Amino acid sequence: MSDLDPDLADLPLVDHHCHGLVRRDLTRAGFESMLTEAAGPSALGGSLFDSQVGLAVRRWCPPVLDLPAHAPAGQYLDRRAELGADEVNRRMLAATGTGTFLVDTGYLPEPITSPAELASLAGGRAREIVRLEALAEEVLAEGAAGDFPERFRTRLAARTAGAAGVKSIAAYRVGLALEGTRPDDAEVARAADRLLAGGGPIRVADPVLHRFLVWSGIELGMPVQFHVGYGDADVDLHRCDPLLLTDLLRATEPAGVPVMLLHNYPFHRHAGFLAQVFGHVFVDVGLATHNVGHRSGAVLRELLELAPFGKVLFSSDAFGLAELYLLGTLLFRRGLGRYLAEGVAEDAWTTADAVRIAGLIGAGNAERAYRLG
Amino acid sequence: MSDLDPDLADLPLVDHHCHGLVRRDLTRAGFESMLTEAAGPSALGGSLFDSQVGLAVRRWCPPVLDLPAHAPAGQYLDRRAELGADEVNRRMLAATGTGTFLVDTGYLPEPITSPAELASLAGGRAREIVRLEALAEEVLAEGAAGDFPERFRTRLAARTAGAAGVKSIAAYRVGLALEGTRPDDAEVARAADRLLAGGGPIRVADPVLHRFLVWSGIELGMPVQFHVGYGDADVDLHRCDPLLLTDLLRATEPAGVPVMLLHNYPFHRHAGFLAQVFGHVFVDVGLATHNVGHRSGAVLRELLELAPFGKVLFSSDAFGLAELYLLGTLLFRRGLGRYLAEGVAEDAWTTADAVRIAGLIGAGNAERAYRLG
Amino acid sequence: MSDLDPDLADLPLVDHHCHGLVRRDLTRAGFESMLTEAAGPSALGGSLFDSQVGLAVRRWCPPVLDLPAHAPAGQYLDRRAELGADEVNRRMLAATGTGTFLVDTGYLPEPITSPAELASLAGGRAREIVRLEALAEEVLAEGAAGDFPERFRTRLAARTAGAAGVKSIAAYRVGLALEGTRPDDAEVARAADRLLAGGGPIRVADPVLHRFLVWSGIELGMPVQFHVGYGDADVDLHRCDPLLLTDLLRATEPAGVPVMLLHNYPFHRHAGFLAQVFGHVFVDVGLATHNVGHRSGAVLRELLELAPFGKVLFSSDAFGLAELYLLGTLLFRRGLGRYLAEGVAEDAWTTADAVRIAGLIGAGNAERAYRLG
Repeated sequence: MSDLDPDLADLPLVDHHCHGLVRRDLTRAGFESMLTEAAGPSALGGSLFDSQVGLAVRRWCPPVLDLPAHAPAGQYLDRRAELGADEVNRRMLAATGTGTFLVDTGYLPEPITSPAELASLAGGRAREIVRLEALAEEVLAEGAAGDFPERFRTRLAARTAGAAGVKSIAAYRVGLALEGTRPDDAEVARAADRLLAGGGPIRVADPVLHRFLVWSGIELGMPVQFHVGYGDADVDLHRCDPLLLTDLLRATEPAGVPVMLLHNYPFHRHAGFLAQVFGHVFVDVGLATHNVGHRSGAVLRELLELAPFGKVLFSSDAFGLAELYLLGTLLFRRGLGRYLAEGVAEDAWTTADAVRIAGLIGAGNAERAYRLG
Repeated sequence: MSDLDPDLADLPLVDHHCHGLVRRDLTRAGFESMLTEAAGPSALGGSLFDSQVGLAVRRWCPPVLDLPAHAPAGQYLDRRAELGADEVNRRMLAATGTGTFLVDTGYLPEPITSPAELASLAGGRAREIVRLEALAEEVLAEGAAGDFPERFRTRLAARTAGAAGVKSIAAYRVGLALEGTRPDDAEVARAADRLLAGGGPIRVADPVLHRFLVWSGIELGMPVQFHVGYGDADVDLHRCDPLLLTDLLRATEPAGVPVMLLHNYPFHRHAGFLAQVFGHVFVDVGLATHNVGHRSGAVLRELLELAPFGKVLFSSDAFGLAELYLLGTLLFRRGLGRYLAEGVAEDAWTTADAVRIAGLIGAGNAERAYRLG
Repeated sequence: MSDLDPDLADLPLVDHHCHGLVRRDLTRAGFESMLTEAAGPSALGGSLFDSQVGLAVRRWCPPVLDLPAHAPAGQYLDRRAELGADEVNRRMLAATGTGTFLVDTGYLPEPITSPAELASLAGGRAREIVRLEALAEEVLAEGAAGDFPERFRTRLAARTAGAAGVKSIAAYRVGLALEGTRPDDAEVARAADRLLAGGGPIRVADPVLHRFLVWSGIELGMPVQFHVGYGDADVDLHRCDPLLLTDLLRATEPAGVPVMLLHNYPFHRHAGFLAQVFGHVFVDVGLATHNVGHRSGAVLRELLELAPFGKVLFSSDAFGLAELYLLGTLLFRRGLGRYLAEGVAEDAWTTADAVRIAGLIGAGNAERAYRLG
């Protein structure tokens, strides 16, 4: 390729972290509750369409539904209802141009599309990312704490046979200040026993268990994703700075298994540093990319200050709303493409370099790290 | 309104957090000591006119005093002295175009204008913000610890009868890592007793007391302002990240009373996150707006990445120097206006949206949140 | 000077923090291992030429070796080998235009140029910066713990007779959350005793000792440099936020001795705050300047939001590779120059102000703070 399209409209993409689509029709309140990381619009603060992502929906999505760009929210939602969720989902996903979806199947607050269903809407293929805590809770519910470590390893090996990687949500449960060392089985069994002895619903929220889960993934050679940074109101964001993972990253680097730091905003410069100094660390700014709307390029520019271009990935982290898959990809394409084109205009790099770097970040790095080839 | 003025010169403003004006004439040393958050210029570092806010004073303020833009500091200060503080104050405040001032009356290092005096200089109106710690120290000095909680509540209700809100300076005293739960009266009385037993000057610096003060405001339905982030050398800035308030924000959200996070710089992206995920959180970048000079737009762009446009407020946080009221408003108008105009030029949003959003951030959100109508 | 060159190509520079040059010829692996803060390229992530600094090498360095800009990495390294390290070092250093080098002599992983040798390559002069921990370890190896404080002070006075300053690497050893008070000699002797009693290699990593070293420098009136923020994988970056130094800065300010916060990225806005509110604090963004490549101006813009222009310094923090000295200076010149020129274009300041500010940051502030005159 010798030309650089500043919109990177045809750039092949691997979306290395996303979820399934909701298939039901949505009220305005339902739509707004899925638009950002807020539970929904606040009586004190007005509509969430008055936000970067809300304006981005109005800019980019109406034309996909045969309306003019910037259509008012009410008109857009009426048209959405008229077409029905299935048709909207089909149109939006087809417009993403995503070739491969790595789908986290561990978050199911309501029935959503399977990985295969999601991918088929875009004419792409899917691979699964297995959520470690969900699997651990399943295994914990089935037997005694004493042999939990062994049972978990067996189950994880079986469950990830066709998977592309695993994911930890330690960030949501205990934060990311995890020690690095691999806990031994006796220590893990004691932690499992404490959890089961508690008698309540089985919910992993113990640093020993989170570390065990991560190490179990690494020992299988499975790339390990971490939720980092930006999330909903359940997250204690100050406990989710990726720098808090430093000990664990130092300890796991020799294994040579990729660790993927997801989202990272507003700590994405911290993540870029980690991607530079630790050979196995990959980073993205998914979720933020669509939430910050036309500022997506500004956030990518900061990530790419220190992060080597061979260590940066694309993800949408879209969940539920078809619009988020489209915006996640489109704002990534535009943000990265315009940055690379500006660099060419300023003679910071050549067109050939820019095209090659776009290819790495869009798909090449993910194909290498997850061995998708 | 169908046009967008990139300077937003006529945008109605509610300055939801500012202080009073100093009325005496000022030496150069006195002027510099009020220009930034430094105590004054340093022998090692030279004049504070060599800073963003210093250059902004020289760019924007001389014409108000009949001098050319960029007049040298010495010439500017001579002219200022010639006109006298009253005339300078009158001219600068009139040039702000601020319609409503919410004035924190709890910081009085020397005689300053009352809220009404301040507002009259700009032809506007004023409402008071009552500083919680100052009132608590007043009440603590008057009686026994045992009935402090009840006496404080009674006093606060009386004192805020005409006020628009209350303000906490926990950031300056103990930092923002406050637990969320409302302390009970016995716990508060014990904390008051510890303070009074100390025997020194009565200075509230106890997490239990700060939490009690905040909850007392919330129970009265008064919007609660928090100093967050940027301040003077008395502040331990690393204890003033707004994310440290997460527990308290989670606990207070159900009450439906607005919480205003002031300043926030350099943690303004963190504040934007909180404004998105907590329905009652409002944010601004006051104080930073004039201190960063012509970078005001850059800071606002970052705040507005996640913060919903219905949750962002304007404040100057000006104290003492008339120039800071003018710069706080002018750099806010220009920073926001140019950002919105660029978004129109890039087709990220429409002119009508931009005009509406400017109206929300300049005044509409404050009018709604503080019920100023 | 009445014109402003946006490249500041002739701006006199004091590089107030750098190291020596490696003189041997380098393989590609050897070159890449010195290019960033990574130990070397990762099998998972590809070449480190695919990074901001790698592209900056290819943009700016080939013409110095008679190749076209953007030459491929392989071709560039071949030409480098052909010319030999001595010739490359001579050409690159001459191209920096640096007049004065303050050289940290405490990091010697292999034989490198002395300060005088380094400076002579650029036709400049050199002064030494003495690394506190290295000197302390030397003194500790020579005698009993009991008189360590006194022996250290004597040695430091002798060793710094011709030096420009001292440097602390507490950041690498224990992090920057140091108490402010000067420890007394008995406390220091006990800490020394604990260290010597350990029996292993003598490595200072005790907050009491680091504080003692810093205070010893201050009592001699020697400017004290601190490693802050960005470094290699040995650093726990979350323990290296400059705000963690607040107590120590508060305690040392009355002494009137300059404290220099080095690097600071990604906490450079935090550093800018400290430079504003503490009269003795100076800041830079060395190391980051070349690592972020053509983003150097973006980082400088953020530093200069709050940092007074009389408190900002230039450093390359270059080590080993001649290319890093050139990129550190060139990207600083361009980043600062273009920012200042844009400010003139936007009428934020005058050309005369911009020229004067460039002179302060490039050399004047360092000359004043280190008394280089």
